[in-house]
Amino acid sequence: MIIDIHAHFTAPDKLFAYKSNLLAGRGESVNKLKLSDEAIIKALNEPVHGGTSHLQQLDEVGTDVQIISPRPYQLMHSEKPEKIVRAFTEACNNLTARQVELFPTKFVGMASLPQNMGVSPKNSVEELERCVKELGFVGCLLNPDPTEGLGPVPPGLGDEYWYPLYEKLVELDVPAMVHAAGCRCGRHDYTLNFIIEESIGIISLMKSKVFQDFPTLKLIICHGGGAIPYQIGRFVAARSKRNTTPFVDSFRQLYFDTALYTQDALEMLFRWAGPDRCMFGTERPGAGTAKDPKTGKWLDDTRPLIEGISWLSETDKKKIFSENARKVFNLKL
Amino acid sequence: MIIDIHAHFTAPDKLFAYKSNLLAGRGESVNKLKLSDEAIIKALNEPVHGGTSHLQQLDEVGTDVQIISPRPYQLMHSEKPEKIVRAFTEACNNLTARQVELFPTKFVGMASLPQNMGVSPKNSVEELERCVKELGFVGCLLNPDPTEGLGPVPPGLGDEYWYPLYEKLVELDVPAMVHAAGCRCGRHDYTLNFIIEESIGIISLMKSKVFQDFPTLKLIICHGGGAIPYQIGRFVAARSKRNTTPFVDSFRQLYFDTALYTQDALEMLFRWAGPDRCMFGTERPGAGTAKDPKTGKWLDDTRPLIEGISWLSETDKKKIFSENARKVFNLKL
Repeated sequence: MIIDIHAHFTAPDKLFAYKSNLLAGRGESVNKLKLSDEAIIKALNEPVHGGTSHLQQLDEVGTDVQIISPRPYQLMHSEKPEKIVRAFTEACNNLTARQVELFPTKFVGMASLPQNMGVSPKNSVEELERCVKELGFVGCLLNPDPTEGLGPVPPGLGDEYWYPLYEKLVELDVPAMVHAAGCRCGRHDYTLNFIIEESIGIISLMKSKVFQDFPTLKLIICHGGGAIPYQIGRFVAARSKRNTTPFVDSFRQLYFDTALYTQDALEMLFRWAGPDRCMFGTERPGAGTAKDPKTGKWLDDTRPLIEGISWLSETDKKKIFSENARKVFNLKL
Repeated sequence: MIIDIHAHFTAPDKLFAYKSNLLAGRGESVNKLKLSDEAIIKALNEPVHGGTSHLQQLDEVGTDVQIISPRPYQLMHSEKPEKIVRAFTEACNNLTARQVELFPTKFVGMASLPQNMGVSPKNSVEELERCVKELGFVGCLLNPDPTEGLGPVPPGLGDEYWYPLYEKLVELDVPAMVHAAGCRCGRHDYTLNFIIEESIGIISLMKSKVFQDFPTLKLIICHGGGAIPYQIGRFVAARSKRNTTPFVDSFRQLYFDTALYTQDALEMLFRWAGPDRCMFGTERPGAGTAKDPKTGKWLDDTRPLIEGISWLSETDKKKIFSENARKVFNLKL
């Protein structure tokens, strides 16, 4: 079985019309969004991201199950007042839940949180609980910078600032997937910002006592851990000077997805993080849904790349493609 | 011959006492710093960074020549008034120049610029010219974010904002080495900030027309190009969707140092950037001067790692260790 842990829903346009109204109205009148099943099913069956439909794209690459969450770059965590973010987040989570109900063997739900610029992550505990207990979701996205580049940024993920959320994650026994939302800094875009925020998140956690305080906390770093596997020698050296736990040992307290689109990057991830900590994830359809100019193959069809790594055992591959995800997300598949 | 293009001076304490006075006085009285040759020579012969002396550390790993510049994380580009940054920068460049004069077969000089938060890079043209024409320097450091994380950041390196500096670099026929200074954002430290700023710098340049407007401009990205070689599939995909020049072709308009401390990262850099665009650089003594917990070897002794890459030809290795640097820096060695 192939489980893709990193994917985002393909939504009807009406969701974004709703967002547009929320923004234009600045929260003056916030109604609930209603989406018909017909519209939800239609969105999943129309061509997207330059390829076939969302559902067809999964079949084409042989993905059996996808864990889907709202599209992070749309989440507008930096908008005010907070209630428009909350309304949109709920609409996104409700859409995710309905998509799962309509395709129960294909999709599993992951929540987005109503994080908001300048507001404590305590504000997200209730929605997380609703998503897990009422909607049956198996985890959530966690944005390390709800200011979306406007700043001042909240403390790093290693700070006690985030503990109310970590407590709830541990209590519910669900993982959080570290994934930034938009980027409004004006100098770089959201896709590079994901990589930056993951890198900052990892180093902040590695310098903290988060995993001493929450030994059962499960944090998944998206996009193969940002910059860190490539730059790991720098951090190994810094840690070695301090003569404490080797950096790689700390690094392996985290989980990672495999949303990387070259084989050498995938190998690097498995080498440093170890196959026990990695879970297949592609974002397909999404950032990698483009044809390789050389081979003509889809860049986010990474299953053959992983299967082609000769030094990974069959057991390793099984862990990466499904077993780790089953455990981390407590999947009943 | 082994030329290490990425290194920073080891300075007498008196330089930092001078900096401390500049900061405390906020520019009220700015005197020139005078350092004795004795103090400069002594600093280079005392143990540093947990190892032997700067000069001994070069001999230990077989480096023949080092291109040295001021320590970037000390450059305080975000301090006001501008004149204290200018005074410190000049002191740093003068020290670099004297170090080169005292050890003319060992060191070659690279400038730091008096970049300042909120001030156009035009402010740096004069000092760059002084360093190249009067002090004989072969290039300069370029900080993409003189606010040092305080923001708002200036436009990305692909913006015309930077053109006055690019014009002067082209006129003088010297390269700039993209290297951030300190980081005052409060969430991550300067060493990770280097990686972030290099990543942002690359993507900004790749989206720009800088190399159309300045076909002979030479920009070197430090630390093996930040996050980009590892995450390159993401950017290959984004470019492929736009159906223009393949991302890797654009990427190879840049130069890179090899300041990475693991062999797989070095291989990844050479694979994507190509041996023609890479130059040996270690920062030794610096961030990587620590012993590998497993092998007991210095992590920044990366020459054997590069020599050990079987798919690089002898010609490739010669380019990486010296030939590319000779050309890019117009070295008379």
